[in-house]
Amino acid sequence: MEIGFIGLGIMGRPMAQNIARAGHALHLYARRPESLAPFEGKATIHASAALVGSHADIVITIVADAPDVEAVALGPDGVAAGARAAGRSDLILIDMSTIAPPAARGIATRLAEAGVTMLDAPVSGGEPGAIHGTLTIMVGGPQPEFERALPVLQAMGRSVTLIGPTGAGQVAKACNQILTGAGVAAVAEAFNLARAHGVDPANVRTALMGGMARSAILDNHGNRMIARNFKPGFKSWMHQKDLRIVLEEAHRLGLGLPLAAAVAQMFNAMQGAGMAEEDSVAMLKLYERLSGVE
Amino acid sequence: MEIGFIGLGIMGRPMAQNIARAGHALHLYARRPESLAPFEGKATIHASAALVGSHADIVITIVADAPDVEAVALGPDGVAAGARAAGRSDLILIDMSTIAPPAARGIATRLAEAGVTMLDAPVSGGEPGAIHGTLTIMVGGPQPEFERALPVLQAMGRSVTLIGPTGAGQVAKACNQILTGAGVAAVAEAFNLARAHGVDPANVRTALMGGMARSAILDNHGNRMIARNFKPGFKSWMHQKDLRIVLEEAHRLGLGLPLAAAVAQMFNAMQGAGMAEEDSVAMLKLYERLSGVE
Repeated sequence: MEIGFIGLGIMGRPMAQNIARAGHALHLYARRPESLAPFEGKATIHASAALVGSHADIVITIVADAPDVEAVALGPDGVAAGARAAGRSDLILIDMSTIAPPAARGIATRLAEAGVTMLDAPVSGGEPGAIHGTLTIMVGGPQPEFERALPVLQAMGRSVTLIGPTGAGQVAKACNQILTGAGVAAVAEAFNLARAHGVDPANVRTALMGGMARSAILDNHGNRMIARNFKPGFKSWMHQKDLRIVLEEAHRLGLGLPLAAAVAQMFNAMQGAGMAEEDSVAMLKLYERLSGVE
Repeated sequence: MEIGFIGLGIMGRPMAQNIARAGHALHLYARRPESLAPFEGKATIHASAALVGSHADIVITIVADAPDVEAVALGPDGVAAGARAAGRSDLILIDMSTIAPPAARGIATRLAEAGVTMLDAPVSGGEPGAIHGTLTIMVGGPQPEFERALPVLQAMGRSVTLIGPTGAGQVAKACNQILTGAGVAAVAEAFNLARAHGVDPANVRTALMGGMARSAILDNHGNRMIARNFKPGFKSWMHQKDLRIVLEEAHRLGLGLPLAAAVAQMFNAMQGAGMAEEDSVAMLKLYERLSGVE
């Protein structure tokens, strides 16, 4: 298929490379030309998102936040404008950014008016998952377009699930960020309690992985806390942003989510402590400071 | 070996049965004679904990809280008194109750003065783990006694780990209760967010089990939340008690554990809401009420 891809960042670049590897033709546009360098000779480079929309069967976007998706999808030089100019009515736009569910629904509605069907398909699994094509992809949108897009999604992810209608992918991602954020904080609290008792957290991790407390976070992030490896991974400012979405939804819908709120405060404090570019696991250091450990 | 067992409750009864099944001779004492009925003809019944201490090589206790352990281990008719009366100096007492680490250390010190070595060996895995002999057992104490006790511990558990010196087993259990408590609360918050969006939590669970949010709690407890099966399992008042220990240790040691504190409040509220005898997963109902769902 002819696949457009916009957003060649840490995640997007390897994801696009996996699509090319699966045998699809790539159509690219990037604001910053240096993002395109790795694709020289392997993709058709376009001068605008609109031209990508004119040439592709499916366009994938993965950008920072909702206004960026809006600009790329619905702006005057955006994907929808290009699809319309080319007289197309079967274009699918898969937005893989993490944005708020209502924002996703609003953009999907406006795209539908332009004849473009949107799937919201945020991902989990970080840079390693993007590189190895093992992402978890949570999809919202109509079933027929999901099925058309499935081969392309499977080129990037190991676990691809249609969660429900438009916005449901973003809801599942919000759930994912509650669980992973609370998981990191809980492991950091447990390890800090062990340390304060003079007990080796490595032994605690090994024992607990044999029981009901076992989790991918205790396994992976726990291991990195023990090794004191705070390199991303997944930068803490991005997790902070995702929990802002969760708490805005909690506010809007009238939900009491005290745990998510407590975790969000820890991510806020990480930003203030100069840990924005470090991985979420650096939260352990914050807990140590909070306990008087320098 | 001659194994004493005191505390034939929901957990203790199947644990003692697994010890007998592994070929050890059981010596039992119980305050309530009805607890002994399943062991009629399969164990030596004694009239006091002291007499169990006189006859066994290893005595196991699993009772509700620290004062109960103290009474059984150090009381006038307790295990240590019996060991002393029999002139024994090689008795091991394995306390598998969940109590505070300093309480475990204090009891171990007083037992050592009476010539009895204590291992603290709290468990995780609930009634099913006790029945199937698949408990996670977290042990604190000296290595030689751990090794002597290992065959007996392995009759009850699948994962048996020496965490560190006396008290370290209780520290690991406290860590376990932070992780499982925060895990249940985080899953309940995520599912409540999904429900408020009209998104099926079952689809969210399936998708998230394929990624970094996967955990035994999302798998097992998530499944029971979806099935609305709130039967214990592990009664919420027991988890509340375990988090009280965590927060008392946080207070004593000067540790800031905001997540554990938030989870403890949810367990407190479960007691007030009449959910004491329900499983921890019933916390989902509390979150729903907190969001105006009846």
